[in-house]
Amino acid sequence: MTLNLADLPADVQEQVATTRRVVSDLHAELPRWELVVWTAGNVSQRIRVADRIGEDLFVIKPSGVSYDDLGPEKMVVCTLDGKKILDGTPDSLQPSSDTAAHAYVYTHMDTIGGVVHTHSTYATAWASRGEEVPCVLTMMADEFGGPIPIGPFALIGDDSIGRGIVETLKDSRSRAVLMQNHGPFTIGSDGRDAVKAAVMVEEVARTVHIARQLGDVIPIPQEKIDSLFDRYQNVYGQPKK
Amino acid sequence: MTLNLADLPADVQEQVATTRRVVSDLHAELPRWELVVWTAGNVSQRIRVADRIGEDLFVIKPSGVSYDDLGPEKMVVCTLDGKKILDGTPDSLQPSSDTAAHAYVYTHMDTIGGVVHTHSTYATAWASRGEEVPCVLTMMADEFGGPIPIGPFALIGDDSIGRGIVETLKDSRSRAVLMQNHGPFTIGSDGRDAVKAAVMVEEVARTVHIARQLGDVIPIPQEKIDSLFDRYQNVYGQPKK
Amino acid sequence: MTLNLADLPADVQEQVATTRRVVSDLHAELPRWELVVWTAGNVSQRIRVADRIGEDLFVIKPSGVSYDDLGPEKMVVCTLDGKKILDGTPDSLQPSSDTAAHAYVYTHMDTIGGVVHTHSTYATAWASRGEEVPCVLTMMADEFGGPIPIGPFALIGDDSIGRGIVETLKDSRSRAVLMQNHGPFTIGSDGRDAVKAAVMVEEVARTVHIARQLGDVIPIPQEKIDSLFDRYQNVYGQPKK
Amino acid sequence: MTLNLADLPADVQEQVATTRRVVSDLHAELPRWELVVWTAGNVSQRIRVADRIGEDLFVIKPSGVSYDDLGPEKMVVCTLDGKKILDGTPDSLQPSSDTAAHAYVYTHMDTIGGVVHTHSTYATAWASRGEEVPCVLTMMADEFGGPIPIGPFALIGDDSIGRGIVETLKDSRSRAVLMQNHGPFTIGSDGRDAVKAAVMVEEVARTVHIARQLGDVIPIPQEKIDSLFDRYQNVYGQPKK
Repeated sequence: MTLNLADLPADVQEQVATTRRVVSDLHAELPRWELVVWTAGNVSQRIRVADRIGEDLFVIKPSGVSYDDLGPEKMVVCTLDGKKILDGTPDSLQPSSDTAAHAYVYTHMDTIGGVVHTHSTYATAWASRGEEVPCVLTMMADEFGGPIPIGPFALIGDDSIGRGIVETLKDSRSRAVLMQNHGPFTIGSDGRDAVKAAVMVEEVARTVHIARQLGDVIPIPQEKIDSLFDRYQNVYGQPKK
Repeated sequence: MTLNLADLPADVQEQVATTRRVVSDLHAELPRWELVVWTAGNVSQRIRVADRIGEDLFVIKPSGVSYDDLGPEKMVVCTLDGKKILDGTPDSLQPSSDTAAHAYVYTHMDTIGGVVHTHSTYATAWASRGEEVPCVLTMMADEFGGPIPIGPFALIGDDSIGRGIVETLKDSRSRAVLMQNHGPFTIGSDGRDAVKAAVMVEEVARTVHIARQLGDVIPIPQEKIDSLFDRYQNVYGQPKK
Repeated sequence: MTLNLADLPADVQEQVATTRRVVSDLHAELPRWELVVWTAGNVSQRIRVADRIGEDLFVIKPSGVSYDDLGPEKMVVCTLDGKKILDGTPDSLQPSSDTAAHAYVYTHMDTIGGVVHTHSTYATAWASRGEEVPCVLTMMADEFGGPIPIGPFALIGDDSIGRGIVETLKDSRSRAVLMQNHGPFTIGSDGRDAVKAAVMVEEVARTVHIARQLGDVIPIPQEKIDSLFDRYQNVYGQPKK
Repeated sequence: MTLNLADLPADVQEQVATTRRVVSDLHAELPRWELVVWTAGNVSQRIRVADRIGEDLFVIKPSGVSYDDLGPEKMVVCTLDGKKILDGTPDSLQPSSDTAAHAYVYTHMDTIGGVVHTHSTYATAWASRGEEVPCVLTMMADEFGGPIPIGPFALIGDDSIGRGIVETLKDSRSRAVLMQNHGPFTIGSDGRDAVKAAVMVEEVARTVHIARQLGDVIPIPQEKIDSLFDRYQNVYGQPKK
């Protein structure tokens, strides 16, 4: 089935428009936190409309477009099989070359509402050694509840990247996986949460790298990690409304 | 006792308003000097009003709020037992999850008027090895009068972080402590002085780290450190008015 | 033959004016991506007008001028023998001291439309060890199709730098060469493509450096590199119009 | 003799005003190139007025003032014995605590018109190991004509820093010295030239540091260094008017 934006119910079109703005704004966070260069990296967010049109959608960055040139109208809307839906303009953009990986995550992880991919430097460095980042910082215990795991080497072009992400993260507290020789993918409850995980995974990858350069780091006992993770997930921040 | 902002004397309310502006502005220094990412880090400043209302107050960052969204009205006012005082609005924000540590410092160190906490990268790297930063730079002798000490591993949730800070710093010239596996806390005569210490501790942690990567650093003899510290504390800058 | 801008056909003058704007704008990318300090670095772009005036031209940065002070009118127009063409103003600027190297590339590589030179930190570090950057990242396979090669040590002042670039790159997939003890030169289909290669070569030099600091990196098998390079060159980005 | 600004001849007052603007503007380059944090670092420039008033003057940063708060009117005018000259305002600022070192350089090196001091990270790291930066980059041969030398450990408070700078640089091609455990001082024909040297010494200190982290660097033969230095000093940039 090929979906066309103009054929969707008005309230779904409204949700699409809102999500395009959100995802466009979130892309500005990637260069801001120095997670990407040139056109690399991408953010997506799920639109939960299965009850309205029979399937969810998601919004993602177009392929190879500069961060300077992004905007809500450039964001590509896709179905969960990774096909873009038409918006009535003849020159509508092609979605990110990583779209299939994002689609696979949404299809196989129901609770996930946002996915981010970057080649951020320190996280990618750990990935190219195939070495997980050990949990030796309280902020890492807070945010990820343990080490940052390594995913398999996988080529673009089929579902092997998406499968590698899902298989690595499905039984993990971590919202970040370092795909071997490639770079980090992060997941979250929505796009913003996945962007936060992308910022934090680079931060902890960098800090632990620097710590390790001059000697051994002190491990945090597992029960302390558990205690920090539990508290941060339930107490930190403002009360949810 | 639960304090309410509207019940305070007018001149104390004035001091609270001024301090909220100061502390809000000081928070902008943390991302500016790249000491924090996302919502991490916090600055507080004491309000010396014990002679007016029987106890001092302090102002601190709200928990989990982005640096982009801060402003004087978002700053939380607390008593020295770490409880926020009510400001009459139903949606007033919750204070930083590190509030108990700040409160402990103010309660146990009378001369301290400002406290800052970050996870700045190089300082946190030394902290995760549990290794003090040796005093091998004249700017470090100037500012800290010796090495930057390590504080104990301590979990959030009771007064163990505050106690670790106070016990490490109470007999030290250093205004910075690196809490093991966690990150730096700095203290000062006011919020700005503690922010300066936070900037400088990262700077010296970074420079000494880089120096050590390629070989041994040259120690500065203790009497030279003493001479530099004494001069800087008494001669540097403009005359106090 | 000494060319004078005023003597060129009107349509060629138009192409010159457009290219000066493009090259001036591209120079802003070098400080933006932190590839240069002070006045170092330069971008050039070929103007394909051999069918109109018997030879191609190219536009390049003036020598020793600050990036703050650049603009289209400051860009120098040269013939392919590296001589600037006169523009009728007595104070017209002298071209970059690297002009001969750019000219040599255009003369000996017909398909190349842009050249960039920087002293970007990590690429120059590999260059000063005379060590090629191994291909251990998928983004490096995508962009460069293999390792970043080292070019010979060559002094400025004759065609030895240009010759070193061309001999190293003519049979390579890489659009970047690290000239020993000197720094990277990159080539591309136009100025923008060469700037992209300059950004990416620093990014991969930096990431692989950091990866190698803590241990061995995992090589990517040659057939996977081939597959990634082929796909990226043909599928990534928006369809060419 | 105590000089008073109001008592100087009108043309000298004019030169003072111009130099204060120049030196104020040059200070903005230090944070821009990330050579300083907080209030650290300083630039000075000589005013050649010995033929008018019997001695030269120089302009320097006030002590302990934030870079945000600088401006021409904040710049302090000094005689070559390092005493500030009065400007008629009761609250005129005290000059940098490094003023004596700047004054010593101007007094003992007639051709020097500008001096800069920073604690830039990589240069200070080499300084704290007491290890000169070897000349393994063509840009370093261009700019400094050889290695960056180390100066003695010297305390602030008498002329020992100034003496260390002059004794290290007087027979060197280098315009930069790394004072042991302290940081770089650079000199130049004017303030801008000394600022350029401060930017370049950090750049080469950083690049050679990074190169050395992963192995041995390739030395550049002395006659090639001589050739590069000679050419750069005489050919690079636009013709002097």
